[in-house]
Amino acid sequence: MRDVAIIGVGMIPFGRRDQDSLIDMLAYASMKALDDAHLGDKAVDAVYVANMGGGILQHQTGIASALVDRLSLLPAAADLVENGPASGASAIKNGVQAIASGYSDVVLVAGGEKMREVTGWRATDFVATLTHPESEYPYGITLPGMAGMFTRLYMEQHGLTAEALVAVAIKNQEMGALNPYAHVEMMITKEGIFDSPHSVVNNPLVADPLRLYDACPVSDGAAAVLMCPLEMARELTEKQPVVVAGFGQATDTHTLQERDDPTDLKAVRLAAQQAFDRAKLKPSDVDVAELHDAFTVLEIAESEHVGFFGKGEGSKAALAGLTRFGGKIPINVSGGLKARGHPVGATGVAQVVEITWQLRHELPKERQVKNAKVGLTVNFGGFGNNVLAFVLRRAS
Amino acid sequence: MRDVAIIGVGMIPFGRRDQDSLIDMLAYASMKALDDAHLGDKAVDAVYVANMGGGILQHQTGIASALVDRLSLLPAAADLVENGPASGASAIKNGVQAIASGYSDVVLVAGGEKMREVTGWRATDFVATLTHPESEYPYGITLPGMAGMFTRLYMEQHGLTAEALVAVAIKNQEMGALNPYAHVEMMITKEGIFDSPHSVVNNPLVADPLRLYDACPVSDGAAAVLMCPLEMARELTEKQPVVVAGFGQATDTHTLQERDDPTDLKAVRLAAQQAFDRAKLKPSDVDVAELHDAFTVLEIAESEHVGFFGKGEGSKAALAGLTRFGGKIPINVSGGLKARGHPVGATGVAQVVEITWQLRHELPKERQVKNAKVGLTVNFGGFGNNVLAFVLRRAS
Repeated sequence: MRDVAIIGVGMIPFGRRDQDSLIDMLAYASMKALDDAHLGDKAVDAVYVANMGGGILQHQTGIASALVDRLSLLPAAADLVENGPASGASAIKNGVQAIASGYSDVVLVAGGEKMREVTGWRATDFVATLTHPESEYPYGITLPGMAGMFTRLYMEQHGLTAEALVAVAIKNQEMGALNPYAHVEMMITKEGIFDSPHSVVNNPLVADPLRLYDACPVSDGAAAVLMCPLEMARELTEKQPVVVAGFGQATDTHTLQERDDPTDLKAVRLAAQQAFDRAKLKPSDVDVAELHDAFTVLEIAESEHVGFFGKGEGSKAALAGLTRFGGKIPINVSGGLKARGHPVGATGVAQVVEITWQLRHELPKERQVKNAKVGLTVNFGGFGNNVLAFVLRRAS
Repeated sequence: MRDVAIIGVGMIPFGRRDQDSLIDMLAYASMKALDDAHLGDKAVDAVYVANMGGGILQHQTGIASALVDRLSLLPAAADLVENGPASGASAIKNGVQAIASGYSDVVLVAGGEKMREVTGWRATDFVATLTHPESEYPYGITLPGMAGMFTRLYMEQHGLTAEALVAVAIKNQEMGALNPYAHVEMMITKEGIFDSPHSVVNNPLVADPLRLYDACPVSDGAAAVLMCPLEMARELTEKQPVVVAGFGQATDTHTLQERDDPTDLKAVRLAAQQAFDRAKLKPSDVDVAELHDAFTVLEIAESEHVGFFGKGEGSKAALAGLTRFGGKIPINVSGGLKARGHPVGATGVAQVVEITWQLRHELPKERQVKNAKVGLTVNFGGFGNNVLAFVLRRAS
């Protein structure tokens, strides 16, 4: 099994990109990753596209074939990988295995989604296509609905507080304002939004107890990573290589109500544990993490399930500022899904791009975690029914 | 790099399966493959689903997560792979790499499609979503349209004859009639269909010069394979292992008109060559082949491009019966896409299932290729823009 290194990364600003097609966005992010690595004439052997909604939103299939042609990377192999909102991490995993197996040397993974073509309930409905087709979708449950019920239970059983959710929202929008790739660049304050007399209008309930500012926006966007065997990284590029030290993937029951304890995100626990075991590292080794905060509650719950904090301690940690930039374990310094945005197929790739920048020490001072050596990503599919984690390490 | 063996296969009869959901079909085929291998309590590490149209036809995503739960294989990793009509082979390739890399031991790949929910132009439109979204789809080109133009050019330049197309259609429907999994079980004769005074009605033009009996039907169906490292196969199962001796994948220009020579199926040539090179075998070593005959012309063209016959010799070979059961190189003994049917996500998996049966010598005498040791599959995505080939070998 060959070790795999990330040698190029690229992203386009997330947000509303009416002028770009899905393929445009994937191509722009890919070209940035290729340019970042500056490979010269070394060929790309395989391309993976991560995308969830090309069929539903763009009435398109065969997108990987279109991209490899657009990028003039023929005759490279090209496949699309879909795993709901964890499509990005799934595509990277398959790219890692392509290299680790010895079948491919240079692999490009591009994740993208064009979601702003639909608005309102149609966007929520699109994401809800990942719910169980027989026992969930026909009854009208959506992801915000699931997250609301999960939050209520977490509050009752694990000391989650509304204040902690507010702290996560404020922190991530504050960091998003520093990230030129973020969809939401607006800083918010407790006084301005949550305690405002207008908060019932400005921050309406989405799914009790979750409010508007607990949820990520609906975004267009794309991100890409270029990988090769670690042993080839130094000769192929001058960039500081980042090693995929370990990955993990685990599934859980498709429906939330079938879980013995619906507040136990078993797939997050297993995926993170597997990634740490393979990396021979532990949660306390992590310098910076990107967790899947499609809703503020998920950042707190995941921070407990990956092992940063004990169960019930995540809220206190968020309130105490331990997860802020400069804190003990900075989470979502990018702004997370909450502020960077969540173009679903792009998210898992964008998380790895952000951690790569952090581990290369390339970010501006105001959001570069000092001397970061180890990073963690968690990409959460379904409502925790299919989760992937990566432990990334700065190559020595 | 570990060698990979197929240790279990399963398929459900293709055709019209109104009573089954997409997940039902994937689950039935998977259970057959699991039962075939009779693994005992050995866990499945990863599940791959091959599917093209879940989003467009069923308004579903996250199908791999639903399947792994339905099969009680939690917490196995689960991803969906899409590569148009070559999704099946792409999913198997990623399963092979998961095992070869050492990250997974036992991998299940299930391919399925539920296409009969749409009929007429909607079915053709669904498949056309794989054409180029800017330079093809908006202008109304469909796959039959491309195949028609390709056929005309092949006739003009490479000695393809209408008689050879008829021979392929008759051969494949004859073999399909012997295959209990085939959608089309009707044997046809030259007199009954092609030379009949009613042929203009019974066998109407679809895309000049291709007629109805040149095209595969629109089918529902699913197929599954179970794989593990070759070194573990003998201890895990009593079944005769079949080795994935080599695979190849290559892309070509997304649009047909950009190719220097549109009759040169470069991706077929490259994918087959790569598969043979990796297997250290050559076309003349192949005892039985499953080629992607979505249209009769493709079987003939592919039989030349993979190296069975020289360019322009495929027609003669078909007319001389060399590709019939009992001939020099039997092609599509299953009935092929033409008669077994072409539920797009299932096809690449079904081809590997058929070859596995052949190499295990498990088929009834009337369609078992005697003493078959080496098989080839070609799964053709787009109009040859993304093609995969597998060389399979009976383990000694």
